[in-house]
Amino acid sequence: MRVCLTVAYDGTNYHGWQIQPNGITIESVLNQALSDLLGETIVVTGASRTDSGVHSLGNVAVFDTNTKIPAEKISFAVNQRLPEDIVVQESKEVAPDFHPRKRDSRKTYEYRILNRKFQDPNRRCNTHFYHYDLDVEQMQTAANHLIGEHDFKSFCSIHTNVDSTVRTIYSLDVKRREDEVVIRITGSGFLYNMVRIIAGTLILAGNGTIAPDGVKDILEKKDRSFAGPTAPAKGLTMIGIKFVI
Amino acid sequence: MRVCLTVAYDGTNYHGWQIQPNGITIESVLNQALSDLLGETIVVTGASRTDSGVHSLGNVAVFDTNTKIPAEKISFAVNQRLPEDIVVQESKEVAPDFHPRKRDSRKTYEYRILNRKFQDPNRRCNTHFYHYDLDVEQMQTAANHLIGEHDFKSFCSIHTNVDSTVRTIYSLDVKRREDEVVIRITGSGFLYNMVRIIAGTLILAGNGTIAPDGVKDILEKKDRSFAGPTAPAKGLTMIGIKFVI
Repeated sequence: MRVCLTVAYDGTNYHGWQIQPNGITIESVLNQALSDLLGETIVVTGASRTDSGVHSLGNVAVFDTNTKIPAEKISFAVNQRLPEDIVVQESKEVAPDFHPRKRDSRKTYEYRILNRKFQDPNRRCNTHFYHYDLDVEQMQTAANHLIGEHDFKSFCSIHTNVDSTVRTIYSLDVKRREDEVVIRITGSGFLYNMVRIIAGTLILAGNGTIAPDGVKDILEKKDRSFAGPTAPAKGLTMIGIKFVI
Repeated sequence: MRVCLTVAYDGTNYHGWQIQPNGITIESVLNQALSDLLGETIVVTGASRTDSGVHSLGNVAVFDTNTKIPAEKISFAVNQRLPEDIVVQESKEVAPDFHPRKRDSRKTYEYRILNRKFQDPNRRCNTHFYHYDLDVEQMQTAANHLIGEHDFKSFCSIHTNVDSTVRTIYSLDVKRREDEVVIRITGSGFLYNMVRIIAGTLILAGNGTIAPDGVKDILEKKDRSFAGPTAPAKGLTMIGIKFVI
């Protein structure tokens, strides 16, 4: 059967999702724990190959297994074998042809900016500390230009190698939550570093470096060098994925 | 001059505030960093001697120094010498006889219970994970019996050695904040383990083990064995202290 997992992790100590020759990854740790549990070689396929240092509350991965353990019990069993910074939230059986990257989906990410005078050590791993003033209204005005279907070439790493840089953003909300500014974004899919470059650009709109409407021009340039810097990985969390039926 | 610091820390890797023969403490790290910065032996006096694993956003400490560095600049300078899990939030000059434990004050603590089906690895160090249902209304009803001046002998560690176990709780609110249940308590001062025993007891009221009004009886017993267990340190954060003029 094919099993679908929802996986939460603290990405601080990992070299991202995808298996790499150097450095431990979420994928490699999951494969090991599942293989040990099920007594067969398990290879998971992830929906979102998050970068080094990025966190997750609801990334999705599938794998095939011959086990007789009911799919919904695998979450509890595998959590006993996982380190405390990776926790499977749910396991369930899916159709044998279900592929999490080939299905239409809506992915939601949150970028948290800790916006106060001094760093809070209790949030140092899950937020980007930024102590200058941020104007959330200006950030939202800038963000509104990105909603919809656009060519996001200016908002992806120059190291990206994809056929098309057109993506759809369904929603992009900037809100103050006590001493944090939280950017919440839902889209059909994101290019390499796209959410972090959007966050870095919205910070420039929030601190007055660029005019909010300047984001429209940045989009039109289709050139990475016009957008803001790539905001640090540790502020980013993959919240969840909804698959469109 | 006497300088007053507001100190935030992630208590995960410390054996609490107070200097101990075995294990690194917040106090010892602060003394070292301040002594190195100011070129004289500095000994801080803390307002709240938090336990091993307890966090802080606003603990207070004072020390005397001959430095010519303006008091309000010390925060920035000492943060350069502190590890990333301790961050001074403010430094200011106070009266030479100001003693943070001998002055009347209102201390606020927060106890965060992560109340969801599975652990969230991103909050594993700063919340107490508890996956059974909690009835917040029942917890608040129980909490209300503790507000005011009472003998809290039932709610302090049997290892406490104090003249009086009478304390005043000014407010005690239990609120659901998304998937967390947050207990926020303000009092004149707290006995050893008092907030964690209150949290452990309110959890019993929330899961139906004890009737909310049973807390009144527990108070009257003046015996630690009648209250709930001491909730884990990692859920507790010292929020701040207001000194009464």
